[in-house]
Amino acid sequence: MSYQNRQWYYVKRPEGRVSDEHYELRDSELDARLSANEVIIRARLISVDPYIRIQQAERNTYDVPHPLGIVQRAGVVGEVVASASALFKVGDAVAAYSGWQLYAKCHHSELTLLDPAQAPVSSALGVLGMPGRTAWFGLMEAGRPRPGDTLVVSGAAGAVGSLVAQFGKRAGCRVIGIAGGAAKCAFLTETLGLDGAVDYRAHPTLDGLRAAIEAATGGVDIYFDNVGGMITDAVIPLIKLRARIIICGAIAQYDGGLDAPELAPRFLQHMLFKRASIQGILARDYTHRMDEMIKTVAPWVRRGEIVSQETYVDGFEQLPAALNSLFEGKNLGKLLVRI
Amino acid sequence: MSYQNRQWYYVKRPEGRVSDEHYELRDSELDARLSANEVIIRARLISVDPYIRIQQAERNTYDVPHPLGIVQRAGVVGEVVASASALFKVGDAVAAYSGWQLYAKCHHSELTLLDPAQAPVSSALGVLGMPGRTAWFGLMEAGRPRPGDTLVVSGAAGAVGSLVAQFGKRAGCRVIGIAGGAAKCAFLTETLGLDGAVDYRAHPTLDGLRAAIEAATGGVDIYFDNVGGMITDAVIPLIKLRARIIICGAIAQYDGGLDAPELAPRFLQHMLFKRASIQGILARDYTHRMDEMIKTVAPWVRRGEIVSQETYVDGFEQLPAALNSLFEGKNLGKLLVRI
Repeated sequence: MSYQNRQWYYVKRPEGRVSDEHYELRDSELDARLSANEVIIRARLISVDPYIRIQQAERNTYDVPHPLGIVQRAGVVGEVVASASALFKVGDAVAAYSGWQLYAKCHHSELTLLDPAQAPVSSALGVLGMPGRTAWFGLMEAGRPRPGDTLVVSGAAGAVGSLVAQFGKRAGCRVIGIAGGAAKCAFLTETLGLDGAVDYRAHPTLDGLRAAIEAATGGVDIYFDNVGGMITDAVIPLIKLRARIIICGAIAQYDGGLDAPELAPRFLQHMLFKRASIQGILARDYTHRMDEMIKTVAPWVRRGEIVSQETYVDGFEQLPAALNSLFEGKNLGKLLVRI
Repeated sequence: MSYQNRQWYYVKRPEGRVSDEHYELRDSELDARLSANEVIIRARLISVDPYIRIQQAERNTYDVPHPLGIVQRAGVVGEVVASASALFKVGDAVAAYSGWQLYAKCHHSELTLLDPAQAPVSSALGVLGMPGRTAWFGLMEAGRPRPGDTLVVSGAAGAVGSLVAQFGKRAGCRVIGIAGGAAKCAFLTETLGLDGAVDYRAHPTLDGLRAAIEAATGGVDIYFDNVGGMITDAVIPLIKLRARIIICGAIAQYDGGLDAPELAPRFLQHMLFKRASIQGILARDYTHRMDEMIKTVAPWVRRGEIVSQETYVDGFEQLPAALNSLFEGKNLGKLLVRI
């Protein structure tokens, strides 16, 4: 017996924007025979994250580049369809890192059992998964929020940003989100209840954007940066004494700007004047503390106190286009491909 | 009775480089009469420091701008010539913040008594004063040096940099200094005993300078930055995992670049990839911990284990030119005007 599998292979390194030419869709058969402790899962939700694009850069990132000629790696929520493990039975919901494929044969140590009664299973790819961990530890450890602090979040309507903003509110901060377009800004103030929102698309010049952020904030104690580029150029001169800047992402630069950085105004004098700090953070550094985060955040999710906004794209064949859409700012909250 | 005083008034804000036109030399009489607890000091050494230029920027630094129309503020080592204080007697050596003037009438609370038997009095403006405090706490608190770390110091032949480099050696770091010119580089390796030196003047392009620093270091765990500009652009892409960058100065930008920053390559992605930190530091934040630093460092000074390099300029009338010379890189170690 076998499973009719479909897989997206990563076959060519992009220079700029990702498109279909960098991936190949291949059909194959997955042999259904299992060794001890192996499990076959059928993916239901595939996570599409900005870091995937970083790993496609040639060099000098946090990883060796994602190898060419293998299935694109990604986080997945799926369902057990066959099991030779005492820990998993057919029908169990699981989280895995099995990538862009319909079916995957996994060792049971690679899987995390999910309990749909505790939280929607998609949360394992969002608020209770990598984006949540990034938001929680990035803000709490590097941001050190205090009640009354003004927290500015770039990419505030995204998977990580929307959680940072909500965690900041719970910590007593005044939270101003930066996002692109009136709809996202309305989401920030109306749905998330933030104290303000700045639509960067309405301010195409650096000076204009800085003035708008200054008007909305009056100065910045914590800047949680998901995007880099001109938004960051605009925020940094507004930092207050002992400000904390958290570098979580630089999505504005992922389309080539990592290997060939653009020019921007120097700003390190502001770090000096304000005795401020910048800290780069990655989710992986907090993986071992996941339980600690879940203990605090899961009850909020269960009680419906956290908005876990998700954008769904339907269809396995949409994966490369969905990845690309991240860089066009089309998603609200966490982007998931449903298959 | 009175003292024939000379004072340099700060009268005009510079746009770029400081020169004579921004100062006025004025003669006056200082009334010798003293109220209770007042002391008159005759300055002998006047400190010339890069921060003086920062305080001349129009706005948005760590201070309100230095007021126009008053005596230029500066650290001073002098001698008590008249005293109505039980704490000071004529002939005592003292440190003060009395600025660019021959004589000053001070309240005794403004003075620190110096003991020439413990250390040369000039050290109160160097290794046991503000530059030493900056170097010590900047490196120890923000840099967190570990044995085996590679520490890179820009402005390494300067007042702060030469001390950072030596403190780093004592902490077990491999220390590479960056300075301008072969003579300064020889000072770094031969006199200070550093593990390497890079002459930035020998590498006029960014790529060439980065290659030279990479060859000398193999990667950077701690970067103590006194200069900013292209040297910093060259170092940052070379940081290693969890690197610490200390922003202590940006002397390359003080001639106008603070108000109108130049453009430089974006680099925050490196902070992300390496989970590195940047921390701006100022001497004033550690003033209350001066005793702690002196307790550790003064015995090293007394035993001659720290090279306290000084450059002397003779003549009170030379003060504006001496300040200017800082930005031409003419001094080795601490720059003092002897009057």
